[in-house]
Amino acid sequence: MGKDVEVIESGSQTVTEYTVKDYTDPPPSALFDFEELAKWSLYRATIAEFVATLLFLYVTILAVIGYNHQSDPLLSPNADCEGAGILGIAWAFGGMIFILVYSTAGISGGHINPAVTFGLFIARKVSLFRALLYMVAQCLGAICGAGLAKAFQKAYYTRYGGGANEVADGYSKGTALGAEIIGTFVLVYTVFSATDPKRSARDSHVPVLAPLPIGFAVFMVHLATIHVTGTGINPARSFGAAVIYNKSKAWDDQWIFWVGPFVGAAAAAIYHQYVLRAAAVKALGSFRSNA
Amino acid sequence: MGKDVEVIESGSQTVTEYTVKDYTDPPPSALFDFEELAKWSLYRATIAEFVATLLFLYVTILAVIGYNHQSDPLLSPNADCEGAGILGIAWAFGGMIFILVYSTAGISGGHINPAVTFGLFIARKVSLFRALLYMVAQCLGAICGAGLAKAFQKAYYTRYGGGANEVADGYSKGTALGAEIIGTFVLVYTVFSATDPKRSARDSHVPVLAPLPIGFAVFMVHLATIHVTGTGINPARSFGAAVIYNKSKAWDDQWIFWVGPFVGAAAAAIYHQYVLRAAAVKALGSFRSNA
Amino acid sequence: MGKDVEVIESGSQTVTEYTVKDYTDPPPSALFDFEELAKWSLYRATIAEFVATLLFLYVTILAVIGYNHQSDPLLSPNADCEGAGILGIAWAFGGMIFILVYSTAGISGGHINPAVTFGLFIARKVSLFRALLYMVAQCLGAICGAGLAKAFQKAYYTRYGGGANEVADGYSKGTALGAEIIGTFVLVYTVFSATDPKRSARDSHVPVLAPLPIGFAVFMVHLATIHVTGTGINPARSFGAAVIYNKSKAWDDQWIFWVGPFVGAAAAAIYHQYVLRAAAVKALGSFRSNA
Amino acid sequence: MGKDVEVIESGSQTVTEYTVKDYTDPPPSALFDFEELAKWSLYRATIAEFVATLLFLYVTILAVIGYNHQSDPLLSPNADCEGAGILGIAWAFGGMIFILVYSTAGISGGHINPAVTFGLFIARKVSLFRALLYMVAQCLGAICGAGLAKAFQKAYYTRYGGGANEVADGYSKGTALGAEIIGTFVLVYTVFSATDPKRSARDSHVPVLAPLPIGFAVFMVHLATIHVTGTGINPARSFGAAVIYNKSKAWDDQWIFWVGPFVGAAAAAIYHQYVLRAAAVKALGSFRSNA
Repeated sequence: MGKDVEVIESGSQTVTEYTVKDYTDPPPSALFDFEELAKWSLYRATIAEFVATLLFLYVTILAVIGYNHQSDPLLSPNADCEGAGILGIAWAFGGMIFILVYSTAGISGGHINPAVTFGLFIARKVSLFRALLYMVAQCLGAICGAGLAKAFQKAYYTRYGGGANEVADGYSKGTALGAEIIGTFVLVYTVFSATDPKRSARDSHVPVLAPLPIGFAVFMVHLATIHVTGTGINPARSFGAAVIYNKSKAWDDQWIFWVGPFVGAAAAAIYHQYVLRAAAVKALGSFRSNA
Repeated sequence: MGKDVEVIESGSQTVTEYTVKDYTDPPPSALFDFEELAKWSLYRATIAEFVATLLFLYVTILAVIGYNHQSDPLLSPNADCEGAGILGIAWAFGGMIFILVYSTAGISGGHINPAVTFGLFIARKVSLFRALLYMVAQCLGAICGAGLAKAFQKAYYTRYGGGANEVADGYSKGTALGAEIIGTFVLVYTVFSATDPKRSARDSHVPVLAPLPIGFAVFMVHLATIHVTGTGINPARSFGAAVIYNKSKAWDDQWIFWVGPFVGAAAAAIYHQYVLRAAAVKALGSFRSNA
Repeated sequence: MGKDVEVIESGSQTVTEYTVKDYTDPPPSALFDFEELAKWSLYRATIAEFVATLLFLYVTILAVIGYNHQSDPLLSPNADCEGAGILGIAWAFGGMIFILVYSTAGISGGHINPAVTFGLFIARKVSLFRALLYMVAQCLGAICGAGLAKAFQKAYYTRYGGGANEVADGYSKGTALGAEIIGTFVLVYTVFSATDPKRSARDSHVPVLAPLPIGFAVFMVHLATIHVTGTGINPARSFGAAVIYNKSKAWDDQWIFWVGPFVGAAAAAIYHQYVLRAAAVKALGSFRSNA
Repeated sequence: MGKDVEVIESGSQTVTEYTVKDYTDPPPSALFDFEELAKWSLYRATIAEFVATLLFLYVTILAVIGYNHQSDPLLSPNADCEGAGILGIAWAFGGMIFILVYSTAGISGGHINPAVTFGLFIARKVSLFRALLYMVAQCLGAICGAGLAKAFQKAYYTRYGGGANEVADGYSKGTALGAEIIGTFVLVYTVFSATDPKRSARDSHVPVLAPLPIGFAVFMVHLATIHVTGTGINPARSFGAAVIYNKSKAWDDQWIFWVGPFVGAAAAAIYHQYVLRAAAVKALGSFRSNA
């Protein structure tokens, strides 16, 4: 890796000069990586994605149902405030992503979300085959996790909506789609920031805290849009809940929870690769000279 | 430690190649380690487990009682929302585990939970004698902690259930057992991820954040199942509360809070050692060759 | 960098002696840095500030509206406790700052707030031109973010106050100004602590955790003053919300949300540079001798 | 510093062998350190303690008043759940300690609490003069912080109890004293764990996360005992609030909030130094031999 003169880079809250490239970007993943197919680590990673998505749906759907059950005025007249509330539900989604990214990052990269996988594929950080395998594993895991949650308490499951994503009354489908796009942008932008080799080399908080801001991104987006769509920003989560809940409204709106997250993830990938990492500028050869 | 060709390992959110083994797995603990018995550090660790479990039960049971007291409509007519709510209770359990694992990890490993000790014993990370000593210390600590909480406020203690774990109305014992198994799986899987030498060597967030995701795992499982069983996932916690509360329902369901966590911990140990760390594959000698 | 005898420095909770200067303070930024103007990194940083402030306003205003909608007794008679509450709103502001500082610190310094930019300018850590460019980008980003939130749900937006900052009934303008000054002091003091080269060199928690306490500072100040002014401590946030909401009360009080944060930020800069880093003492040459 | 054979030490969740002492305990602080008195860093540290305690009281008392105001049924009939609740108050105390310890640890050690200063003095980690100076600064800072909060909103301040610590109805003084002792034990035990050179050398999470578990300890103890005493565990906080509130009940119970925290801090210091760090055993020369 040769010397490479870098433009001024503003470090954490202040401005530092780097004259030598102190990081290495890995080469783009091959679109088709046949060697990968013969390796146990690919299948192990797929299993890890399946298990993580299963646990994600199981815990979060139980938290949603538990909340609705406790705040149901028909069952417990004085239970107004006993549930964990929307804040508790938002914590359940964000906190689970935190611990699952923490636990599986070293095995599979800790995607647990087809939109994240899609964003990283767009940026050529995973191969096509790995991306497809992950997405299938995530969807199957989500179905199993939602199924487990339903098996535990059939009566409450249907009564309280099964944690399925639907456009709430008073909001248009366009609004819901926009909410999913921007929400997923926030999440995938955080994922790209957390896994950028240049940032990791220069700011020690980037690699060390990584799973925490990713979990917080999910937490934040839930606080913002849980009243609009229930917050998807994860097609596997929306799909798994819809398969098990299986009501027409959840299926009618399902496309929003695939198109929105994929568009948002692609936008975040483009923003990070072409604007922040200046891939466009580098390609044009402007603004910089090589030593 | 000789060179050892490793298969491709996907690093944090992306894929990195490691050709040399850059970590060392400690040898399995002896089942009976008689040398250990003569060392002060074993007994110091046992004392640390006792004190940590005592503080855990004391703080969490006071939080549960405080919450129920404040939301009791008989005592304060407008107190509906003054309690910390289920979210506050879940934070009390998760947050205490965070600070106790942080404080005792270097002394005893920071188990504070017989299910964690059992999982680590299954994976041969602690000796049989240490495991038994820890479990006894944890149960005694839990009894003392619950006793202290009761001594402080006898009247409220019994009125609000003493923080004992019981299967809630509307849920079967099978459901409760399943909830305990999966909940403990989430916790012990996080513990294994946090203490894996291979992960620690490769992802800097693994050793540095360790106590935080372990605490969050406890927090998350409480959000999911507090309305099902009150959430045990820690036999010492359930046992200590039952001894001090001493009502028949808590004793009748007690087996669930031992069998569930132990099964969940064993499943997590097997998943981590045989699937993620590929012990099964290594044993078969397939998928890899030595340099 | 020559040897420099340092006075005793109290390290984390205890007292350590340092005899050699183990850190380097960067030289003060030039007031006018014309070289900077030709660099892509300046404009990239400006874009990053724009996008971050847009996402900040979008998520937080949706969270505020969502909360007010759910607790509106006219719409849902039993919805008293379904909203995320003030705690949820405080988390939305603090949590977004955490993930945005985490993500943009390496690109632009992660200010996302004209008061932070002003404080760092006062301390000569950014040039005048960069400071002005950032502030314009932050204000434009805030307007776009608030506009997006309004576009999504026009009806609720106006009904629930549009997230605009106003002095609450029962509080004087002087109180509101004081609240903004002290609140911004807490935030900017934390920012200075997090980016101090001397602290970073000596306490490993300083650089690694950095974005987390900055986010928590915002969270804390919201818990304290959300009932006084809605909590500004960020002129771009107050300005963007006022432009889109555009009611006279929000405009009448607007000066408070510029004067307060700028005074608080200047006070924090002076406290950090002249008291804690002893610039005043150093200038007088007292209390220390050079080796 | 010669080689020193160490007994087996159980590392994070597992057991590692250390044969060489890989850390240095600083020598005990002199009881009277006259050299220290001539140094600017001592007075700077005292100023930092004053400012930090002022900000601590200001933010937390405003949060308490804001909460009580919003949940007051006389003022806003539908405001039942609009306050941040006990959970929000507990977060305000814990979160402020987190950011203040983060920001001042490198200047003064970040005590912000006479009980912490007392515990560290008992363990000979600060000199007598420094300890006294800190305590005076903390008490003055607390008075100013509480005064500022009162100046902002006199009417609400008195109506909602001014954040003063008092034994709640239904609890005896003995219970309150016990609650303060054990609560402070939890806090000071965490502080000792976070600043132990042996732990820091061996577990990377110890120095890096340090301010976070200290803040969480305060958060946890508030969840447990806020309904018993309002939770003191910090004599400066209780004293400052009592001076400004100045009602007889707050003064009658004041001794509890000095005796309790000091006893708890001493117990934690003894537990850490004599049991966990085996000072007693080392003194007896048993269980270990020198190389």
